[in-house]
This record gives sequence, C-alpha cells and structure tokens, in this order.
Amino acid sequence: MPRPNPRLVMKFGGTSVRDLARIRNAAEKVRAEVERGYDVAVVVSAMAGETNKLVGWVREASAGPEGGAAFYDAREYDAVVAAGEQVTSGLMALTLQQIGVPARSWQGWQAPLRTNAAHGAARIEAIDTDALDRKFEEGLHAVIAGFQGIGPDGRIATLGRGGSDTSAVAFAAALGAERCDIYTDVDGVYTTDPRMEPRARRLDRISYEEMLELASLGAKVLQTRSVELAMRYRVRLRVLSSFEEGPGTLVCDEDEIGEDSMESRVVSGVAFQRDEAKVTLLGVEDRPGVAAAIFGPLAEAGVNVDMIVQNISEDGRTDMTFSTSEDDLPKALKALETARETIGMREIVSDRDVAKVSVVGIGMRSHAGVAQKMFAALAREGVNIKVITTSEIKVSVLIDRKYLELAVRALHDAFGLHAA
Amino acid sequence: MPRPNPRLVMKFGGTSVRDLARIRNAAEKVRAEVERGYDVAVVVSAMAGETNKLVGWVREASAGPEGGAAFYDAREYDAVVAAGEQVTSGLMALTLQQIGVPARSWQGWQAPLRTNAAHGAARIEAIDTDALDRKFEEGLHAVIAGFQGIGPDGRIATLGRGGSDTSAVAFAAALGAERCDIYTDVDGVYTTDPRMEPRARRLDRISYEEMLELASLGAKVLQTRSVELAMRYRVRLRVLSSFEEGPGTLVCDEDEIGEDSMESRVVSGVAFQRDEAKVTLLGVEDRPGVAAAIFGPLAEAGVNVDMIVQNISEDGRTDMTFSTSEDDLPKALKALETARETIGMREIVSDRDVAKVSVVGIGMRSHAGVAQKMFAALAREGVNIKVITTSEIKVSVLIDRKYLELAVRALHDAFGLHAA
Repeated sequence: MPRPNPRLVMKFGGTSVRDLARIRNAAEKVRAEVERGYDVAVVVSAMAGETNKLVGWVREASAGPEGGAAFYDAREYDAVVAAGEQVTSGLMALTLQQIGVPARSWQGWQAPLRTNAAHGAARIEAIDTDALDRKFEEGLHAVIAGFQGIGPDGRIATLGRGGSDTSAVAFAAALGAERCDIYTDVDGVYTTDPRMEPRARRLDRISYEEMLELASLGAKVLQTRSVELAMRYRVRLRVLSSFEEGPGTLVCDEDEIGEDSMESRVVSGVAFQRDEAKVTLLGVEDRPGVAAAIFGPLAEAGVNVDMIVQNISEDGRTDMTFSTSEDDLPKALKALETARETIGMREIVSDRDVAKVSVVGIGMRSHAGVAQKMFAALAREGVNIKVITTSEIKVSVLIDRKYLELAVRALHDAFGLHAA
Repeated sequence: MPRPNPRLVMKFGGTSVRDLARIRNAAEKVRAEVERGYDVAVVVSAMAGETNKLVGWVREASAGPEGGAAFYDAREYDAVVAAGEQVTSGLMALTLQQIGVPARSWQGWQAPLRTNAAHGAARIEAIDTDALDRKFEEGLHAVIAGFQGIGPDGRIATLGRGGSDTSAVAFAAALGAERCDIYTDVDGVYTTDPRMEPRARRLDRISYEEMLELASLGAKVLQTRSVELAMRYRVRLRVLSSFEEGPGTLVCDEDEIGEDSMESRVVSGVAFQRDEAKVTLLGVEDRPGVAAAIFGPLAEAGVNVDMIVQNISEDGRTDMTFSTSEDDLPKALKALETARETIGMREIVSDRDVAKVSVVGIGMRSHAGVAQKMFAALAREGVNIKVITTSEIKVSVLIDRKYLELAVRALHDAFGLHAA
C-alpha cells in the first residue's frame, strides 16, 4: 500500500467565490497545495449574495402576498438555501478540472455529513468519509458544499448562517487533515481592529481559547462554533486572505504556541464592541431565584445578555447590572417592565451610550496584574470604568462610548501590542 | 383501509414559476385540484432564466478565462444546473403551505428517480414511489424537482433540456396518476400556429401519435420524449395554460378520441418548419453502402437530417435529396465536400430558401386521398412542391419559403380545420 498523501481542508467564504474570476483565483490556491502533495478537500460557501437572495425568496413565499406571518417550514428553507452552496461546489469542481486538478463535488447528503433533526440550525452528528477516502485514492480531490448535511429524515439540513466554517472544521477532523485553512477577506487575526488602531499587528499564532474570546467579542473573523469544534478535535485552523499573499494566523493549541513563539506575550489582543447598552436594576430583592426572575423574561424576549454583575447586598436589597446590544435594549426594557412585579425592584436605569473593551490573552493566567495594568492605563487617559467582568483569559470593562478609540489605543500600547 | 385518493401530476414550466407571484398563481391551481379530492404531485422546472444562467456559469468555468475548449464534466454540470429546480421545489412547497396545502419538496435523489449513467442527458430507469406513497397517506402533497434524478454513481443526473415534462410523465406513470397536466404559456394544441392562421382552432383532444408528429414538426408545446413516454405508459396528458382558464388539450390514446369526439376528423393539424434547406446530390453511384457513405459523415458533423428522398436509378446513377435546417447547411456542405471522393457523385446542389409543411392526422390511415387533396390544394394556389415524404399519419412537402403562409392557410382551409 502506498502511503496516503497528507490532507488539507481549504474553505472559501462567499466573497472568495463571489464570481467565476474569484472562484478561479481560489482554485489556483488549491492547485498550489495539490502541487505541494496534499489531498485537498475544498469547502465552499454560496457565492456572495446568493444566500440572502434565496432566504429572501423563502420569506416572501412563506409570508404570502399580503406579507403574513414570518413562520416558515425549516425543511423547505433548507432545500432552497442549500442550492447556493451546491452551485458553487459544481463550479469550483469544474474550474479545478479546467486548470488540471482532478476534482469532484460533494453535496452534504452525498458525503454524507449527518446532522440532527434541527432543520435550519442543525448540529453535526457524524461524517462518513469512506466515499471521500476512496475518491482520494483515485486521485480525485473533493469540493464539498459547505453549510449543509443530511438529517435523520433523509432531507437536506443546513447548519445555520456561517455554518460553512463549521463544515470545514468537521471535515478536517473527520478526514484527519493536517490543517484547515479558512480563506476570507482579511489576512489574519489582528491584535485589534486596524481601522481603530493603525499599529495593530497580525498575530502569527493564537490559541483556540483566545480566538473564542476575540471572535465573540467582535473580531468577526471566524464563527465561534467552528472554533469550538476545532478546539474539541484539535484541528489546526489557519485564517488567511483569498486576495493577498501571506501566512495568515494559525489558530492552534496553546502548547503549539509556547513551543516556537518568540512572543511570550501576556495579552494577545484588544477586542471591543461599540454599540452596547447597560441596564441596572436598583433595589432588587436579594432572594434565591431573583436572577432567574430577571433573566428568564429576557431570554424569552430574545435579548442577548452579555456581562452580568451583581453588587453586594445591603438591607436585603441588591443592584443587578447587565449589558446587552443597543439594538436589544428596547426589547429588554419592555420585558423587564412586564416582569417588574415578579422581580421586585425599586428602579430600572439604562445607559445606551456605552462600549465594551476587553483584553484577551492566555498569558494572563500566569501573570498577575493584567487587570491592574488595564485599569491604570485607562485611568491615565481619564476613562471612567462603569462595569468590570473577568474570565480566565479576559478582562472586560464597560466605558462611555465616546472614549472607545482612546481606550483601545491606550490598551494596545500599554500591553506592547504595537507593530514593530 | 380507506380508499386512496385519485392522483394527479401537475407540471409547471419555467415561465409558470418565473417569480413568486407566478409560483403563487400555480399553487392556487394546485389547491383547486386538492379541493377536488386529488393527491397531487407537482413537478416544477427552474424559474425562467435560472437554468440559462447556471449553464452559462458552467460553460464559463469550464472554458477558463481565455475561453478555452467547451468540454465540461457532465457530473458537475448536473450538480450545478439541478440547483435551479431544487430552489423552485422548496419555494413551491412553502407557497402551498402558506395557502393551506400541506406539501413537501422532493429532489430527484430523494424520491428517488433513478437514471442511467448518461449525465447531462440521462434516461429514466425507475421511480421508487414508496416514500411518496407514505407521505400521501399522511396527507402531504408532493412537490418534485423536475429534470433530475440520481444516477447509478449516487450523483445527481439531469435528463437534458426540457426534461421536466419527461419527469412529470414518468411520475404520473409510477404513481398511477389519473392524468398529467402540463401547465405552460399556451392554452393547448392548435390545428396550426395561430400567428400564421388566425382561424386556427384549439383541439380538445389529440392522439399521442399526432402529438408526436406535431411536436417534432414545430408545434413546440411538449417535449417529444415526454409524449413518447406518455404513449408507452398510456399516461393521459393535458396541455393547458397557467395564465388563462380553459380546458386545454388532452393528449391521449386514439381510442379515447374515437369514443366521444364529435370531430371524426381526417387531419388534425398543419405543422410547418420555416427555415429549412434542401441538398441534392446529383449523379450518385447507385451501389450498396452509398447512403451510409453520405449520411455517416453528416451524422459525424452533427447535422440533423430530416427528410430523405432517393429517386429511381438511371444508368447506375441516382439523385439523393435531403433536408436539414438552414443553420446546419454550411456544416452539411462542408462534410459532403470532404467525403465527395468516397461517395462518388457528379454535383452537389443546395437550396436554402425552402420550408416544410405537413398535414398530420390519425384519420388518414383509413381515408384515402389525403395526399392527393393536399397536392391539389397547393396546386390551386400555384405552390410548387419540391420534395414529398409520407408516414402513416403525416404527409410532408418542401416548398419555396415565400409560399409558406399561403400553403399553411390553404391546407388549413382545405382540411376543414378553421374555427367555426
């Protein structure tokens, strides 16, 4: 038996396959990896704009001409929307063939990627790679329609928006790929948003844990779910640009960072979210179940709650503060007013002009004083801190929105993140 | 066991599902049949324009940026192009649900409709209706993506352009449907093209055989292949308009026409093809194999040959005449010049200004004199006949193109086809 080739998963998002010229550009990148000796599984999104068009049609068909209720059958949503990736997969296979790379497309139901029954937002249950393995042995590279699989009912099931990243990681795990390269429109993960701080630096490597904190905090490079999956199966992820040459950023186990990184850094990045809102419930009865009485109605109203802080209790009463997005604030206030009696509180105070800034880094686990250094840097700039929360590798604060740029730059500087 | 409902297949072509308003219009027609007590299987084409867009992308991807060879991988063509019907099937199911008709979409691979391995122009081998039957029992009507099935390789296989009609007939046969209604943009089959003869009349009924002759001669209402399939499985086809109310035309067994038709007509219609060309090879050696020597090279060159006439032989030489489309004429002449030596002939004469007119009718089997009546009618108008061919239910002539309208109207009148 000849030794099988190492395998690589390469995922191209919607902007990277927007038209046939871009599909060809992506195909050239695949050819380069094939020439390096890899068996490649390409995972593709729908061409940019296609998914939105199809979702729009689904909504319109479901609503009827008078624009009725927005309910729609998730199975049919899946059948319609999955067509977007199906088209790209075929076009990518044809383009690869045209430039001399033998390739074959695979739909979610063909691979198959098996999901649970949650149509429209299905979870991956298993991937059977036997058929793919056989085709690799025949020298046929794979082009896989991302974002989709087949449910227990034998019907197409999609993984929810952005699910193509998750497909790619799942295939990388199942195929035992050396790496999963995510091609996108940014050239890697930065220490902060370069539009905010021009001296922001691309990170060569970042741990899964840091990436999760950065992604959920607004770096918006990779879908959180795909990073979680990569972490669980130890899939090395590389984020890189379809449009510029460059090594991108490797998202990997923290051991791999320690090994060869010259950056024994404490903090990897400064993340932020501009449009936050803060809500404080004053004089809440301090009794068991009160948190549930507050956050239950918020969850039912579809409010995404981020930071939660409870101060110490005085005289059987406490103050409860949480943050949410500015968009969700009206919903949140309405839900709280409705539940006011049940909760038992004196007053609801809200502040819609706040922003959140976080410093993230695995190094802070072993380095004391990160929070202190952060607070000192903000104090030097006269930035008042309204709320603080911490996790093992992150410290976040809420501040007045007008100080956001100032705060990000001050922290980027204070933690030595500026480009050389 | 309750008695199962009678079944009906309803097929909507691309113009009938061009946008969501038209899909809804089609869905209302389905609801009307459901309310009449039918279990309905709706077969849909891609939205008008979608298939051409997808085929264009396939060609472009396969040709590369310099516009190389037109070869493309038929498996990938199928994966891309089948997405068009997939989208419509989901949207139709959603629209039916929205107007209160329980419905579920089925892709070709799901039903499944099994085909042979001829990707891009696959033939139907079998349809397994067990899953559909079960869903009908649950009260779920079916929306089937037309034009596609699954090949022996487990991949999507399309049936070739216009294959949705063929899908519809095949499902009607497999489901034992009472009828297969083909909704299109004309309201039935006419005695001739109404743009040519305003007194043309819609036929209430027409036999499979007549329909085949009319379709292949230019009536362009139904794909020939679907009529052949309907004839073989005795599927009653009804052609009717998506946009106007009316009974349409029933395509059925000739017994069913005889039974209740007040029209014991000899001729059902006058078909024509405007852009024909005539080629005559003069002084061809009259020896075994000479026809093959002529038509072999033409077939290889992709020339569609229609009528073929060989005159009697004199002095070991004969004249061979055939007709083809004007478009194919240059290819035909080139192929014949190349093969001139092999064929052995004196001269090639061609005429590009001819048209073909045919009278079609099952009645002519039992009525002598149809050909004679046709020739007399043309002679009265001074139309010279260049070539004649006949089949059991058809007489066709080639004439000068400038006399086409005159000839069609004269024949329509002579055979009593004018509307009352």
